[in-house]
Amino acid sequence: MHTDAPLTTLTTLTDAETQGLDAHWRALNYLSACQLYLRDNPLLTEPLRPEHIKPRLLGHWGTVPGLGLVYTHLNRLVRARGRDALCVWGPGHGAAAVLAGAWLEGTYGELEPDRSRDAAGMLRLFRDFSQPGGVPSHTAPGVPGSIQEGGELGYSLAHAYGAAFDNPDLLVCAVVGDGEAETGPLAASWHADKFLDPVHDGAVLPVLHLNGYKIANPTVLSRIPEDELDALLRGYGHEPLYVTATPGSDPADVHRAMAAAFDGALDRIERYQREAREGGKEAREGAGPRRPWPMVVLRAPKGWTGPHEVDGKQIEDTWRAHQIPVSGVREDPEKLGELERWLRSYRPEELFDDDGRPREHVLECVPEGDRRLGASPHANGGRLLRELPLPALEEHAVPVEAHGRGTHEPTRALGGLLRELMSATEGRRDFRLFGPDETDSNHLQDVYDATPRTWQARQLEGDEHLGPHGRVLEVLSEHLCQGWLEGYLLTGRHGLFASYEAFAHVVDSMAGQHVKWLHSAREVAWRRPVASLNYLLTSHAWRQDHNGFSHQDPGFIDHVMNKSPEVVRVYLPPDTNTLLAVADHVLRTRDTVNVVVAGKQPCFDWLGLEEARAHCARGLGVWDWAGTERHGQEPDVVLACAGDVPTQETLAASALLREHLPGLSVRVVNVVDIARLMPLTAHPHGLPDAEFDAVFTRDRPVVFAYHGYPWLIHRLAYRRAGGSATGPLHVRGYREMGTTTTPFDMVVRNDLDRYRLVMDVIDRTPGLATRATAVRQRMEDMRTRHRSWIREHGTDMPEVAGWTWSGPEEESGATHT
Amino acid sequence: MHTDAPLTTLTTLTDAETQGLDAHWRALNYLSACQLYLRDNPLLTEPLRPEHIKPRLLGHWGTVPGLGLVYTHLNRLVRARGRDALCVWGPGHGAAAVLAGAWLEGTYGELEPDRSRDAAGMLRLFRDFSQPGGVPSHTAPGVPGSIQEGGELGYSLAHAYGAAFDNPDLLVCAVVGDGEAETGPLAASWHADKFLDPVHDGAVLPVLHLNGYKIANPTVLSRIPEDELDALLRGYGHEPLYVTATPGSDPADVHRAMAAAFDGALDRIERYQREAREGGKEAREGAGPRRPWPMVVLRAPKGWTGPHEVDGKQIEDTWRAHQIPVSGVREDPEKLGELERWLRSYRPEELFDDDGRPREHVLECVPEGDRRLGASPHANGGRLLRELPLPALEEHAVPVEAHGRGTHEPTRALGGLLRELMSATEGRRDFRLFGPDETDSNHLQDVYDATPRTWQARQLEGDEHLGPHGRVLEVLSEHLCQGWLEGYLLTGRHGLFASYEAFAHVVDSMAGQHVKWLHSAREVAWRRPVASLNYLLTSHAWRQDHNGFSHQDPGFIDHVMNKSPEVVRVYLPPDTNTLLAVADHVLRTRDTVNVVVAGKQPCFDWLGLEEARAHCARGLGVWDWAGTERHGQEPDVVLACAGDVPTQETLAASALLREHLPGLSVRVVNVVDIARLMPLTAHPHGLPDAEFDAVFTRDRPVVFAYHGYPWLIHRLAYRRAGGSATGPLHVRGYREMGTTTTPFDMVVRNDLDRYRLVMDVIDRTPGLATRATAVRQRMEDMRTRHRSWIREHGTDMPEVAGWTWSGPEEESGATHT
Repeated sequence: MHTDAPLTTLTTLTDAETQGLDAHWRALNYLSACQLYLRDNPLLTEPLRPEHIKPRLLGHWGTVPGLGLVYTHLNRLVRARGRDALCVWGPGHGAAAVLAGAWLEGTYGELEPDRSRDAAGMLRLFRDFSQPGGVPSHTAPGVPGSIQEGGELGYSLAHAYGAAFDNPDLLVCAVVGDGEAETGPLAASWHADKFLDPVHDGAVLPVLHLNGYKIANPTVLSRIPEDELDALLRGYGHEPLYVTATPGSDPADVHRAMAAAFDGALDRIERYQREAREGGKEAREGAGPRRPWPMVVLRAPKGWTGPHEVDGKQIEDTWRAHQIPVSGVREDPEKLGELERWLRSYRPEELFDDDGRPREHVLECVPEGDRRLGASPHANGGRLLRELPLPALEEHAVPVEAHGRGTHEPTRALGGLLRELMSATEGRRDFRLFGPDETDSNHLQDVYDATPRTWQARQLEGDEHLGPHGRVLEVLSEHLCQGWLEGYLLTGRHGLFASYEAFAHVVDSMAGQHVKWLHSAREVAWRRPVASLNYLLTSHAWRQDHNGFSHQDPGFIDHVMNKSPEVVRVYLPPDTNTLLAVADHVLRTRDTVNVVVAGKQPCFDWLGLEEARAHCARGLGVWDWAGTERHGQEPDVVLACAGDVPTQETLAASALLREHLPGLSVRVVNVVDIARLMPLTAHPHGLPDAEFDAVFTRDRPVVFAYHGYPWLIHRLAYRRAGGSATGPLHVRGYREMGTTTTPFDMVVRNDLDRYRLVMDVIDRTPGLATRATAVRQRMEDMRTRHRSWIREHGTDMPEVAGWTWSGPEEESGATHT
Repeated sequence: MHTDAPLTTLTTLTDAETQGLDAHWRALNYLSACQLYLRDNPLLTEPLRPEHIKPRLLGHWGTVPGLGLVYTHLNRLVRARGRDALCVWGPGHGAAAVLAGAWLEGTYGELEPDRSRDAAGMLRLFRDFSQPGGVPSHTAPGVPGSIQEGGELGYSLAHAYGAAFDNPDLLVCAVVGDGEAETGPLAASWHADKFLDPVHDGAVLPVLHLNGYKIANPTVLSRIPEDELDALLRGYGHEPLYVTATPGSDPADVHRAMAAAFDGALDRIERYQREAREGGKEAREGAGPRRPWPMVVLRAPKGWTGPHEVDGKQIEDTWRAHQIPVSGVREDPEKLGELERWLRSYRPEELFDDDGRPREHVLECVPEGDRRLGASPHANGGRLLRELPLPALEEHAVPVEAHGRGTHEPTRALGGLLRELMSATEGRRDFRLFGPDETDSNHLQDVYDATPRTWQARQLEGDEHLGPHGRVLEVLSEHLCQGWLEGYLLTGRHGLFASYEAFAHVVDSMAGQHVKWLHSAREVAWRRPVASLNYLLTSHAWRQDHNGFSHQDPGFIDHVMNKSPEVVRVYLPPDTNTLLAVADHVLRTRDTVNVVVAGKQPCFDWLGLEEARAHCARGLGVWDWAGTERHGQEPDVVLACAGDVPTQETLAASALLREHLPGLSVRVVNVVDIARLMPLTAHPHGLPDAEFDAVFTRDRPVVFAYHGYPWLIHRLAYRRAGGSATGPLHVRGYREMGTTTTPFDMVVRNDLDRYRLVMDVIDRTPGLATRATAVRQRMEDMRTRHRSWIREHGTDMPEVAGWTWSGPEEESGATHT
């Protein structure tokens, strides 16, 4: 930690300033409380009557006054310092405060004309809130200035860091609820300060909002001793600045304390950034000592300024303030009176004129134009998004003289492409690679030739590929990688998250929420498209030779495919060039979540670049060079495959069939984009039935070798002619038969191996079972031979380990160009 | 924080003791290193030759020496203090050290006779390690003394706390890797000390193992300033005790420092426990000040004692020591020599006799019998498991005079059952309820009549249901809940995890790993069955009236159903009594993961207790009282349902059909245990085809209303006669059409409503489409009426909100008993 003398900031607010801030805050509280209750009489121009109250009271009050206080003071700070700022609102159910802020500053009405800054717009604001088909009580995509919904808690700080990366002039305030602070992702996020570059990144200002309670419980951080909390926050690398309010506090004192804390934080941030950016070489290169970033601890009552006691029970400053503080107001005149007293305590007549327009002094602290929190282009990142300068694939493609002749590591070639993309974006800094300590392990390390891993903590002699200004973010937390990337994308940049396939499940929930965000954002007219969230899942289930069972799980695909079809895409490129073509495609897409599954181990090069591009564009296709079908006739059987390992086994099976059953007409189909299997009515990438039937036939046996859980293919194709299991589609895939073992043993254990596929063809092709008993026995014998070989040698048998493809074209002397 | 004068512990080891400890540690290191390399010559009785080396070197060295040091010193501590201890080994790929420890103390050989404590057993230990079909390099279920595999990182500390709860005499050491310390779940786990009761729980002793590197990267906690780290750990509520070793450290010094740190920690733990347990009333009731629990920070080089430099690159104390430190040893004589020098540096001849048996001084620190770490019954919890004293359901069942006459909140009745179960286990303390701040929200709060929420942090006047000795664990982290429960179950106790349905996805990955653990544990002969992991998913997708889209996700079922069928079970009880019957069942099961999905809102009581029990036992059944089929004839159509909301809509559809199409013969089928839909070959609960056909018919239209994503039903039933979508099975379910809205609007948006189901029947029953156009139009009109009603009133229309079931039996005057 640092021993610099702390900056002491003298913030002296004039009484008028304090009153202006208080008016703004009271207006936010008034507008928020009314959102919970009112369907009429928005300005309380007449006494409150039951018919002014919504029939069903749904909404949340607890966190709102604290969020309002931050909104007010962030306004002041932005105005006073001439700063671009963005706020990530962490606490759940805080939308009422943020909507109130956006309405008050005018942004809501500019984006949604029926939310105009007058009595009519105010009433619309109140009526729609938390009502059927209306506006959610979370800061969903329809809320101006929001980049996270916060319905699922824990991601605010990670999102804030993601927004701050490569935005050197931006201040990102992150209000962290003390409820969400108990979650794992949030707890890990505190260490993100070791990855924030004071030179190229903006600042993150966490505001830990200790209001003491969750739904029905105290919070941990509000109940530990103050010195323990202080040690914790300093241990995270922060210098905490404290603001404390109790139910009885004089608001003017609180405003002065908040203003001083925010000014103090900004002074520290500006000093740190200035030193890093303008200082000597040492500071510029980031080798100077890491400073503690300031943060604010706001201890303020849950449900502050609301009813203190109802029915003899304390509400304010308890968990009972979480939702509706006074209920039964339509039925009970006393309760109605209580509500009216509460609402009038904000003195709405001082805040709004007769037409419902905010009076001048209420808006004194509000910034202008795009500086308003609800108008920040960073919070509507599509406004800032630029096309990526994607490299020409020709320079990264691997040469393919003949189908399947050579082998390459797909992800290594992608690493080359990423290296060039990093170089091309060096000045723009709008592309980053994210991953949990696996860039090398996933064979993407060529990217380090262009940029190192970001690292602001101590460096030691011998460290490799670490630097203060790097754009590869590595931390052993999939949650942080995902949260950072989401924040980065939603503020208008591009990225790729490379992960071990199995551990993508760590972020299932976050991925699902991001899909929901994109799904909802598509329905918000003023939200501009953002770059897609791209996953590269590698080190996949079939090649966990020494990691074993715990590292074998292809189910992330299933999780994603359950989500909104407008948003989700899954690609399984079978080789290096196809991976490059898929990567090039997904990096150009907008508003989707793309999952790309590809191996890092040497893989046969099935397709040349042009073929790969065409194959990727079609999403699936017949590989006529790999089958034996005769032109113009339907084949006897279709061998279909998706994924690199299944493709290899399928081609090996095709070769075995050619050798052992030369009369059989075999078609080989490879699927890259699995949504093509769905009907067009179910997914925008779905193939029309006629095209599907043209590829898979309507009635010939289809033996499908698939990378993941086999039933997913049935689920996608069940509406097709041959889709049911009693029909001709037969799928092999991963069936949780995993362990520490060799690649070929894995496919044998899961019945996905070439010999089993041949047996499946024999079993399912009419008339073949009796004709081909000897071939079938031979296949069974090979599986037996494998099992004894591996027991004895611990390796795969030579005929498998050394297998190479030789297709009919080689046999007939044809060459591939 | 506390200001007690710190305990200063004077640990003086004699030279002989130090030498004994060092011999044990050297033996562990030798045995570990040999596991990576050797297939022969285990005692190095002859010069190392290439044929002694495994053909494929797979394994990990980096973390092993540090884990070995902990194993050695935990042995000493257990022996010196007469303590029961368990160790949770957090760092990944540490199994070699733990297997070495178990082999050395003899437990491995007792459990697996071919791992005997002689040269033959030693060779078996070496050969099987990290080889195909052999022993994983993670501490998988086959590793004695292990309760977590650690293949996926981040759960060690949570598991340790779970093991310590209600085990007052147990010391649980948790080695936390500095890699896993970056994960969210681990970061959140540090705060678990606010939930540990010094009276009824055991102690957790975290050992933060700072070896500095992950796979290819430095770790954050090893690179922050020491005072920052110290503040962080104190902020977590710990008193850290430091042990530091560098590549050049004299092992004797390190042993003395480790012994002093462990003794110091135990002194503190014993003082704290003694004061809490034997002190005055204040301390006994837990109202005394929370003390900081001690922890050890072990800073020691990655790959310590291994080769310092290979090929001019530093290995020891860098990330390069992560896997195999010297490779190419079979091919390169120099490398082979390097390996031999390394292995001989442990002086095996001093450690083992000619038969490979450990010499006496090596075993001096090893405890006896069940005190040995690999023999702890706590690590094989089934040895300690007792049947739960489950209450009679009769006292909690709701009276059902006629099917569907009344309504109850299912989870509230379950809360009563849990209350009684908590009371019945008050002395035994072997049952706990886990949840993220939602026990009240999920309507389970009656449990608080028996036991409060555990809380060791500060209490304030007005707090409710908080207490230092409670057995309800609430923290806003699904990760912690899951990790604690796993640790609790694997050490032989029982529990239930109640969560909002949508946020179960937060623990997808942990749940998947636990299924894998149970799957693998079934294959380990000496592992005794443990209590199943039970989820109650409530506050489900259909009733998120004010939480909206972010809280709507039924996909946890799909995730779980992808996993090993021997382990996974999913139940969808349609009403209160069925929920009780299901809960009673799952709490009796062993070695499975049970997912129970049930609502908390008032729900029709369809079944009396005896009916519910029978229905639950069958898993699905025809509700003849709800349909109109004529005895002995196949019905015209089958209405099937699974889940409480779909059941209600299905019964309403049945009533509409009875009213509008009285001639139609309708069968109603309800499914509780969805695995019944699978073939018996695919899941142990699968229904034989003939029974399936007897229920669903082979060819009549089946309109299936399902709680979750509809395609799951197709995936389960696709092998059935009518399983494909082109066949007669038609499924309605949740299709991501969510928002903040009313219950009935949710089902309309997702086409699961009663009117749509009737339309489906009309559309899919041969001949009906033309006969019933007017009825169909009427249904369409009702859906239109709903949409305008909700727009106008914000509520559900009266004919839906006030709907009650009246079955044919009422009409015919039959009564239900």
